[in-house]
Amino acid sequence: MELTTFLRHLSATARSVTLGAPVPDADNKAGAGAYDPVTEIDRAAERALRTAIEEAFPQDGIEGEEYGLVRAEAPRRWLLDPVDGTRALICGLPSWTTLVALVEEGEPTAGFIDAPALGELMIGLPGATMLNDRPVRVSGCATLADARLSSTDPYLFAGAEAAAFDRVRRAVRLTRFGYDALAYARLAAGHLDLVVESGLHRHDWAALVPVVRGAGGIIGDWEGGSDFSQGRIVAAASTALYEQAVAQLR
Amino acid sequence: MELTTFLRHLSATARSVTLGAPVPDADNKAGAGAYDPVTEIDRAAERALRTAIEEAFPQDGIEGEEYGLVRAEAPRRWLLDPVDGTRALICGLPSWTTLVALVEEGEPTAGFIDAPALGELMIGLPGATMLNDRPVRVSGCATLADARLSSTDPYLFAGAEAAAFDRVRRAVRLTRFGYDALAYARLAAGHLDLVVESGLHRHDWAALVPVVRGAGGIIGDWEGGSDFSQGRIVAAASTALYEQAVAQLR
Repeated sequence: MELTTFLRHLSATARSVTLGAPVPDADNKAGAGAYDPVTEIDRAAERALRTAIEEAFPQDGIEGEEYGLVRAEAPRRWLLDPVDGTRALICGLPSWTTLVALVEEGEPTAGFIDAPALGELMIGLPGATMLNDRPVRVSGCATLADARLSSTDPYLFAGAEAAAFDRVRRAVRLTRFGYDALAYARLAAGHLDLVVESGLHRHDWAALVPVVRGAGGIIGDWEGGSDFSQGRIVAAASTALYEQAVAQLR
Repeated sequence: MELTTFLRHLSATARSVTLGAPVPDADNKAGAGAYDPVTEIDRAAERALRTAIEEAFPQDGIEGEEYGLVRAEAPRRWLLDPVDGTRALICGLPSWTTLVALVEEGEPTAGFIDAPALGELMIGLPGATMLNDRPVRVSGCATLADARLSSTDPYLFAGAEAAAFDRVRRAVRLTRFGYDALAYARLAAGHLDLVVESGLHRHDWAALVPVVRGAGGIIGDWEGGSDFSQGRIVAAASTALYEQAVAQLR
């Protein structure tokens, strides 16, 4: 099956579980004193995605937020976050997404950010990002003073990160909070110019890479490189804007 | 014309301007060093709402965010915010709303929070709030530790307000940022339990009152009363939850 067709199939598979369900109750995955919600929708969607991948590509590895890793040694691996923004989902807010990435030799080469409640499937491929089959481009915004910034929650920044983020926030035109992975899709569509976050896990950031890069955007770490393993991500609508953000974060 | 029918007519009137337009550019209404965006969509939607009200109720006062007050002495006044969440609109994010309130003898008695991009019209009337004609109720959540809290932007709290909000934030189950007036509609629908904000103008808060109260919720100020003139608002899914929030804010 052609890759884009298969990604669309995975989106439809997850939507068949996630869309139209009542606003769910959540279990707490974290221990006492912390809160990391997961719902039966998260789990059922990941099971459906795993089954679809096993049927099409039984030799590929699969790593998901809820059910861990199989075939760690495979050269291709699918990274799954069945519901990114579970907090939004359990608040009846439409910004939650499903994230799928194809990782080859350690590099995310294709994937999607799917916002089922908004009907927006954003597929990233080498050289192109498509919103519901229409190609999109980043805005090209090149100066912090003009930039529309987004981040999910300023309280997610730890220690010195909070001061670093605050320097960026004070330098931009406006800041919007609350959008999880959807912010990166909006950046790819040219409507946001900058996203700065920390604390992302591999299943959170892998799908963002092909979506942002396919639309002509820059995605890197807070140091000016591409080491996402620390979970500190900057996505920008131009190289100049990325470098200005990194200069503030350092 | 029956009031509910007229409110639906006003929603359709504003949507005919706001829906489907490309993501607009913004002018800055604030002076140097500040940012208060307004777009041609804001202005055109308010003009359309004013025309519709003048046609149906020529004796009523009208007060809107963009074009000021007419007939200040009228016993009935319509309060209009054509686009609440202009920052979301210019970032291509779907959470912006149109707010309309009918104020009689100084009291907001009916109104709506309309989220056109989400297809969600929430009409508040004495004793009932309807989401697309289906009655909704608040969750009834009665303890801070269980509550889902929302607020638009933690940086909007000034001085001691920030510390007060932080006490509430630390006491609740989870917090979501970024939703402007849509948060109050989600509270009316039972999916959020608590909203705490400050800095709201009359055209921001007037429509929230009938929507929250019609769904069985509590909306008041940070002191335990109903003086909204300071722009400090608490909406809650129960009286007990409202009182616990006020105890933290005081």
